Amino acid sequence: MNLSMILYLLGWILVIEGGLLLLPVLVSLIYAEKTVWAFLFTAAICGVFGVPLVLKKPKSKMFYLKDGFIVTGLTWILISIFGALPFSISGCIPNFIDALFETASGFTTTGASILSDVEALPKGMQFWRSFTHWIGGMGVLVFLLTLLPHTGGSHVNVMKAESPGPQVEKLVPSVQATAKILYGIYIAMTVLQMTLLLLAKMPVFDAITLTFGTAGTGGFGVLNDSLGSYTPLQQWIVTVFMILFGVNFNCYFLLLLRKAKRAFSMEEVRWYFLIILAAIVMICFNIWGMYGSPEETIRHAAFQVGSIMTTTGYSTTDFDLWPTFSRTVLVILMFVGACAGSTGGGIKVSRFVVLFKSIRQELQHVLNPSRVCVTTMDGKQVSHEVRRSINVFIITYLAIFAVSTLLISLDGYDPTTNFTAVAATLNNIGPGLAAVGPTQNFSLYSAGSKLVLIFDMLAGRLELFPLLLLFNKETWKKF
Amino acid sequence: MNLSMILYLLGWILVIEGGLLLLPVLVSLIYAEKTVWAFLFTAAICGVFGVPLVLKKPKSKMFYLKDGFIVTGLTWILISIFGALPFSISGCIPNFIDALFETASGFTTTGASILSDVEALPKGMQFWRSFTHWIGGMGVLVFLLTLLPHTGGSHVNVMKAESPGPQVEKLVPSVQATAKILYGIYIAMTVLQMTLLLLAKMPVFDAITLTFGTAGTGGFGVLNDSLGSYTPLQQWIVTVFMILFGVNFNCYFLLLLRKAKRAFSMEEVRWYFLIILAAIVMICFNIWGMYGSPEETIRHAAFQVGSIMTTTGYSTTDFDLWPTFSRTVLVILMFVGACAGSTGGGIKVSRFVVLFKSIRQELQHVLNPSRVCVTTMDGKQVSHEVRRSINVFIITYLAIFAVSTLLISLDGYDPTTNFTAVAATLNNIGPGLAAVGPTQNFSLYSAGSKLVLIFDMLAGRLELFPLLLLFNKETWKKF
Repeated sequence: MNLSMILYLLGWILVIEGGLLLLPVLVSLIYAEKTVWAFLFTAAICGVFGVPLVLKKPKSKMFYLKDGFIVTGLTWILISIFGALPFSISGCIPNFIDALFETASGFTTTGASILSDVEALPKGMQFWRSFTHWIGGMGVLVFLLTLLPHTGGSHVNVMKAESPGPQVEKLVPSVQATAKILYGIYIAMTVLQMTLLLLAKMPVFDAITLTFGTAGTGGFGVLNDSLGSYTPLQQWIVTVFMILFGVNFNCYFLLLLRKAKRAFSMEEVRWYFLIILAAIVMICFNIWGMYGSPEETIRHAAFQVGSIMTTTGYSTTDFDLWPTFSRTVLVILMFVGACAGSTGGGIKVSRFVVLFKSIRQELQHVLNPSRVCVTTMDGKQVSHEVRRSINVFIITYLAIFAVSTLLISLDGYDPTTNFTAVAATLNNIGPGLAAVGPTQNFSLYSAGSKLVLIFDMLAGRLELFPLLLLFNKETWKKF
Repeated sequence: MNLSMILYLLGWILVIEGGLLLLPVLVSLIYAEKTVWAFLFTAAICGVFGVPLVLKKPKSKMFYLKDGFIVTGLTWILISIFGALPFSISGCIPNFIDALFETASGFTTTGASILSDVEALPKGMQFWRSFTHWIGGMGVLVFLLTLLPHTGGSHVNVMKAESPGPQVEKLVPSVQATAKILYGIYIAMTVLQMTLLLLAKMPVFDAITLTFGTAGTGGFGVLNDSLGSYTPLQQWIVTVFMILFGVNFNCYFLLLLRKAKRAFSMEEVRWYFLIILAAIVMICFNIWGMYGSPEETIRHAAFQVGSIMTTTGYSTTDFDLWPTFSRTVLVILMFVGACAGSTGGGIKVSRFVVLFKSIRQELQHVLNPSRVCVTTMDGKQVSHEVRRSINVFIITYLAIFAVSTLLISLDGYDPTTNFTAVAATLNNIGPGLAAVGPTQNFSLYSAGSKLVLIFDMLAGRLELFPLLLLFNKETWKKF
């Protein structure tokens, strides 16, 4: 294990977080809020811990997959702990476990909250809360890589650990150049959404924070009814952008290269849109008549489907009041999740595409045992390695799901609440059903259960293994 | 496809079913019930359809895996349809979908019922209902194989399709001899349980029917409160035998060969008992104080854990009233299921053992990518083929689970009811929670939902692929 390199990177992460905290400082100053000191103090602490680590240059830049996983896991725990300080020391969220829950929920782009009254928060705190979504959406370590001098094979290992999806596809030969392109797309789309929301006459503060939440597929809002009280046009803009941020960013890269045909023939993206469309249609039929007009029905259906499928977690209506069929559709979408290579969470469409192809193949195998079957995706063969890792992912996912549900059931709430609480955190969505539904929050759970759900949020965002590795005895053996 | 051979086997199946129907005829005569004619009539119909098929000898005895899967799927559908006739034509269960549900539930050893008053059934009907469990427990096709003259490689393909578990292990070189040993063990254990129950002063009729339900890990009882009103001793006997029938029968074979050391070192069996013990302990802590005495607490915990884990589905208490934690433990056990090579359902312990080993391997792989990892079970390497088929099984299982839950949610019942209804049928357990809990029944669902659940019961018993293959277009193409 390259400990000096890991510490060096963690130092940089803290320095970056300290720098990012200056934005909520600015917002607090604009609104003349006393809580500005909490951000300044936290930024200073980040500096105190981070700068010494950065100054100690690593002995070797060699960096294995294992190191990539460890530094990723530690990074996300660290930024959550430090990011929780402003909430905690300002007294806005006095209990530290609650503050940690809120911050981990922010960085992992979950959007599950323990607050019953978001509107009571100072603007600076609301801003920081939404800003963590935007930071977490693309990942901080990959961002760091674009800044650091080239270190050979090490970068791809960090990218493998932090980027969602079963495979890391480099768009261009260099990892850093790939990361820069992705950030460019991310920033451009963020600016575009903000502009459109402002044109649709949304207040500036709301436009900025809600765009952060949309871009990172997070879900923290600034009003207690999430997006319920915005205008239909504003809701439609958010719907479209939620869905766009759930698309595999490679698709946009291909569009930039004017390879539209290849972009639109990406199997994952096609399935993604097909599933969204099918879900909207099914729900529309099921809830027809519940709202005033067909437009309103379609809008609510499309918004909720886009929000859950991309694991954003905004809501425009209390979908916990929908009939069971619609709720079941939403719960299934929770697990499907967005595309790989997007900012969204969940198991990812591409994994399901590969998995369903394997079912067909098994049937083929029974019908004709001598035929050799090859799984392809976008015309390319899916390697045995990738298929194996997808299978292990699903199993690990289910194991974490079962254990988490069991642990939080000790608090005694009903099964639907517990099941969807884990589904909503492990898939980085936000709201669940019943007692953790869109009009409720997660404050009901005990501190122990909250820690389990924090683990789930982090495990979900990092796709399980970077986090699991930290809890594995053997990882720390050969130290 | 060897159509003539498939029809020949299906003919035999009907003849056997007709023969087996003579037992409930006998019971009906003993109790002088008018409904005896329903059994006689059905037996005659089985003969009318079966005998002509049997008389037409197959042209070729060549039999591929595909044929094995098809004949298995068709067999189970056929015996369920014909087995439902006595209930239907006698008027005991007038609606044919309901009668089919009850019979498929019987043969697949599920034990889910649509009857609210079991005690109102004539004794002959009660007997037939329990007897289907016993028939279904070991499988009818494998039984047929022990009777038919040797037909080369064909038998193992039927056994692969009908026997539960990821791998078929032949105990002795001949498939027929293996089947005979397994049936011998099955019958011996059945007789032993009946004897013990009679010694414990259970009425003869109850002892016979309940033993059928235990041996097949079925779950149909003859009293409305399942096993709630039997004596503690009788309940303990059933507890022990439920757990014993969930053990991999290879273990008993090794014991017969006096290879006790190898029998007790079977990894699957060790995990099976470990999980049962852990679940009992957890539930005891959780429900402590709910019952009059420690013995009663432990008895109810052990009974329910044994019943759910082995997918039997008897109950001695309404576990739907237990705290959420205990109910969650039970729901998780529903999915784990019994050992492979037992009469129980569920995903099977051995699959989970292999799957969990693959998680550990993945972590090892990250820590040390160059090391070659081999999954072993009982000291032998688990082939790539078996691991692949386990993975595909899990994925297919989840897909069927999700689609089934979605379809039955159209009826509008609450999520817990729908979720556990599918869990209880796909895993061949019987009762679920909430509106399909142990004191309730499945009659609330619409005919469409019942058909979905019938599909799930059959798919669960045949481990998905024999049934899926029947619904695959390509299966019928090269006809």
